[in-house]
Amino acid sequence: MPATDEIVFIEPDVQSANNKEVSPQTSDDEAAVTNDASLTTMTPKRQASFQSAPMKNHHEDFLRKAVDVILNEAVFKATARTNKVLEWRQPEHLQRIFDFNLKENGISHDELLHVIKDTIQYSVKTGHPYFVNQLFSSLDPYGLIGQWLTDALNPSVYTYEVSPVFTLMEDVVLREMREIVGYENGKGDGIFCPGGSMANAYAISCARYKTNPSIKESGLHGGPRLVLFTSEDAHYSIKKMASLLGIGTSNVYMVKTDERAKMSVPHLVQEIKRAIDEGAKPFMVAATAGTTVLGAFDPLEDLADVCAEYGLWLHVDAAWGGGALMSAKHRHILKGIARADSVTWNPHKLLTAPQQCSTFLLKHEGLLSEVHSANASYLFQKDKFYDTSFDVGDKHVQCGRKADVFKFWFMWKAKGTAGFEQHVDKVFDNAQFFLKLIRERPGFRMVMDKPEFTNLCFWYVPPSLRDSVDSADYNTRLHRIAPKIKEKMMKKGSMMVSYQTIKNLPNFFRIVFQNSSLEYDDMVHLVEEFENLGCDL
Amino acid sequence: MPATDEIVFIEPDVQSANNKEVSPQTSDDEAAVTNDASLTTMTPKRQASFQSAPMKNHHEDFLRKAVDVILNEAVFKATARTNKVLEWRQPEHLQRIFDFNLKENGISHDELLHVIKDTIQYSVKTGHPYFVNQLFSSLDPYGLIGQWLTDALNPSVYTYEVSPVFTLMEDVVLREMREIVGYENGKGDGIFCPGGSMANAYAISCARYKTNPSIKESGLHGGPRLVLFTSEDAHYSIKKMASLLGIGTSNVYMVKTDERAKMSVPHLVQEIKRAIDEGAKPFMVAATAGTTVLGAFDPLEDLADVCAEYGLWLHVDAAWGGGALMSAKHRHILKGIARADSVTWNPHKLLTAPQQCSTFLLKHEGLLSEVHSANASYLFQKDKFYDTSFDVGDKHVQCGRKADVFKFWFMWKAKGTAGFEQHVDKVFDNAQFFLKLIRERPGFRMVMDKPEFTNLCFWYVPPSLRDSVDSADYNTRLHRIAPKIKEKMMKKGSMMVSYQTIKNLPNFFRIVFQNSSLEYDDMVHLVEEFENLGCDL
Repeated sequence: MPATDEIVFIEPDVQSANNKEVSPQTSDDEAAVTNDASLTTMTPKRQASFQSAPMKNHHEDFLRKAVDVILNEAVFKATARTNKVLEWRQPEHLQRIFDFNLKENGISHDELLHVIKDTIQYSVKTGHPYFVNQLFSSLDPYGLIGQWLTDALNPSVYTYEVSPVFTLMEDVVLREMREIVGYENGKGDGIFCPGGSMANAYAISCARYKTNPSIKESGLHGGPRLVLFTSEDAHYSIKKMASLLGIGTSNVYMVKTDERAKMSVPHLVQEIKRAIDEGAKPFMVAATAGTTVLGAFDPLEDLADVCAEYGLWLHVDAAWGGGALMSAKHRHILKGIARADSVTWNPHKLLTAPQQCSTFLLKHEGLLSEVHSANASYLFQKDKFYDTSFDVGDKHVQCGRKADVFKFWFMWKAKGTAGFEQHVDKVFDNAQFFLKLIRERPGFRMVMDKPEFTNLCFWYVPPSLRDSVDSADYNTRLHRIAPKIKEKMMKKGSMMVSYQTIKNLPNFFRIVFQNSSLEYDDMVHLVEEFENLGCDL
Repeated sequence: MPATDEIVFIEPDVQSANNKEVSPQTSDDEAAVTNDASLTTMTPKRQASFQSAPMKNHHEDFLRKAVDVILNEAVFKATARTNKVLEWRQPEHLQRIFDFNLKENGISHDELLHVIKDTIQYSVKTGHPYFVNQLFSSLDPYGLIGQWLTDALNPSVYTYEVSPVFTLMEDVVLREMREIVGYENGKGDGIFCPGGSMANAYAISCARYKTNPSIKESGLHGGPRLVLFTSEDAHYSIKKMASLLGIGTSNVYMVKTDERAKMSVPHLVQEIKRAIDEGAKPFMVAATAGTTVLGAFDPLEDLADVCAEYGLWLHVDAAWGGGALMSAKHRHILKGIARADSVTWNPHKLLTAPQQCSTFLLKHEGLLSEVHSANASYLFQKDKFYDTSFDVGDKHVQCGRKADVFKFWFMWKAKGTAGFEQHVDKVFDNAQFFLKLIRERPGFRMVMDKPEFTNLCFWYVPPSLRDSVDSADYNTRLHRIAPKIKEKMMKKGSMMVSYQTIKNLPNFFRIVFQNSSLEYDDMVHLVEEFENLGCDL
């Protein structure tokens, strides 16, 4: 192929290097430090270097100091009850505290350590016991070490040759999870993926392929209108992903939920019939086991019956609720899940693995690969010297993929299945304790009378409002309370609890119990903090 | 709502807790350790606990010991030239070394430390200077600390209230990157996403919406056949994502590449015309800046002209090549990129940020949100007490999203823009040195005469084959050489270089220069190692 004259390279002195007696195998850190002198000359004001590993001595010093700061500030202090959950600052204030802007020259190690401290100080401590704002929280020591080791090794899980240990761990963990779901002998397939939304996308992708395999090649144009069904309380990712996958949000039929926020089976059947009458092709029901806001569980047995009758793929989004499967006492709330074609289950939610740790599990062996393979010859060569069935990378839609398995496997080894069970039982117990507590105290009103899970939704009604339940503007006034309490809570930094509105209800709080280091005393503290913040409103 | 009798909870003693004098704000680690005694009773044989943070004393001890092992083994030793890149084991052998299986009970801290050591020993050291196997490598000390801090804080970047610092950092970094791409004043939009494949999916999603916004709601069925164009050397994710997004692999028209592996503009025009003649609707050209195997750069200026003429979205997959934009000397190879509608650029590739660190950048302000928003009321409440335009979560298709920005921002602060430029210039220089080296040595043959980038593709021809160039079975015999060398290399653990075949060429090696701590001596070493491994074949 012809040369180009566009490219002008410095002419490196090849001849002398070729003649030089070199034995790089014996070059060591000393040699590297010697080389470093020239770098110092190049950039005299900086202690940081543009090079990566092999680490130099001054890198080692920085790394050890930085790790100490992280352990002390972001791990131990950040999770202690005695400290604040957050140090609130408005964006414009934070922009004055930080020098966010990127400059021509780097800053010194001391300045970097300062930046680390500031980042910790003004970030939300999601590992703090009183961060009960999202469906993730906690800082698990084993999970953290697992994540840190993964980062240091910086692998990508697509071929056995690059990730031998993590490939085998994925196989074991996914099989074990399938067995817990109830798939016979843990058979089937699965993948770790970047979040529950992506796992739900895999479900739609597999279900769609199963309906008509030619979609992989030919796409959706020219085919029938595909319709999938999910409940109005399902996670918004179902709609988002249906849109991304070219199915369209309006082809996600929202099934009504009953008084316990569960998908209404009669309404589902009605909607399936409507779709058929319209000439569309129903292909999937996306059930939820643990809805995002109210923590409801769809009636999986009944849904499985409906899916069997109409030939639909049953997916269960158990991103949040899946962890309950590890408790003999509580797994009944997911009864029927073994009949699902596929399951989303995020260990980074109820089981407190560090983010991200999401799995997509399915009953159908080999399907993931059939749906998603592209047979890239540069990565998945078949003339390798080992069994290339261990090269799992062609099953997924990512190319590079983080080894999210290790932290979870490591936690599992540390705690055992029994440890996860104790953890789950404890957060259920805490939730139940909290529920009883607020039922007995004035001013708290439950959104759902008998919640099933560990996210609890309630209103805090300040004394000023308690006698106005029947007034015309009661709901309007109540609606304004939660944002006000939230603002006070954030500015005080005492806890973080989210609020929201669904189905035109006034804004209410959702507290999430997921951190098993919380004790009954903490429940009392949380309740009292609502009273402190809200009593004067 | 009615109660259910399915759920049986232990009755927690609410009354006594309510009456107890509690001040959880003052409970501290001592108290936690006291509580821990009961845990020890529950599971007498384990040192590990089922609880997460707040950390107990024995957790702290474990964390510090484990971090020491990780720093010594997975950071310092793993990146030293004197050590092996990998310790190869076949899957069945690894399964005997490790007890991968998950058990009812956990193991002790000492056993966990042992597991950490084994995991390091049998994992590939991707930070080792002689791991030149993928488009990622290196272990950057600042990147690693940035990642570790992110893990400890365990944030999710969707709302300002949960990720104030990281939200603002994303804004700064993405704007700076857009400015480097050449977008006027850094205007536009962008997102950090889980890998370049996902970034390419965003591109297809935005381009598709721009063609016809009603696709978001109505989907692709019933619409015209959408066609996108990419080169036969483009990354396989374009096809994978076109399939996932419902467009179908057969509607990705593969444009021929010229002798320098660049997309042929005449053939592109021909293919666009063909699609139009077929009644299909062309909507996008996905160009590549730095192809995966050969490191080629498509002619972006010409492609921008074609896209302007036919009204097509121009996307540039610069996942691998984007880093070259930071070098004044080398950025010309991406000339024209500022005219692209969107760009994929992965700092975890050429710029050595830890995985994953991928960005999708686009010229069109507000479009990401328009295409992907679902307005989930539980997360994106509009009655918050701060400017909710900082809640970026509805722009993306994930819900929870890792703060991949921090490690990169932190590296940038450490090195400065100048540091990244030196890094890029050095790896280019190394690649050029390596190229000259193998041109002068017998047995090495380049796949492309004048490569433009830092991945170099070549054959190593053993002496036994050198005189048979004209024989009928030369290619067949040469094809078998690379797998044999690779096997010897892996088993020796001396380096890792990938091989592959494209376009029916015999298997060839691709070496990737991306780690700027490599010196000329290392180049000589790598060349000599090929000779050592291959000379007897």
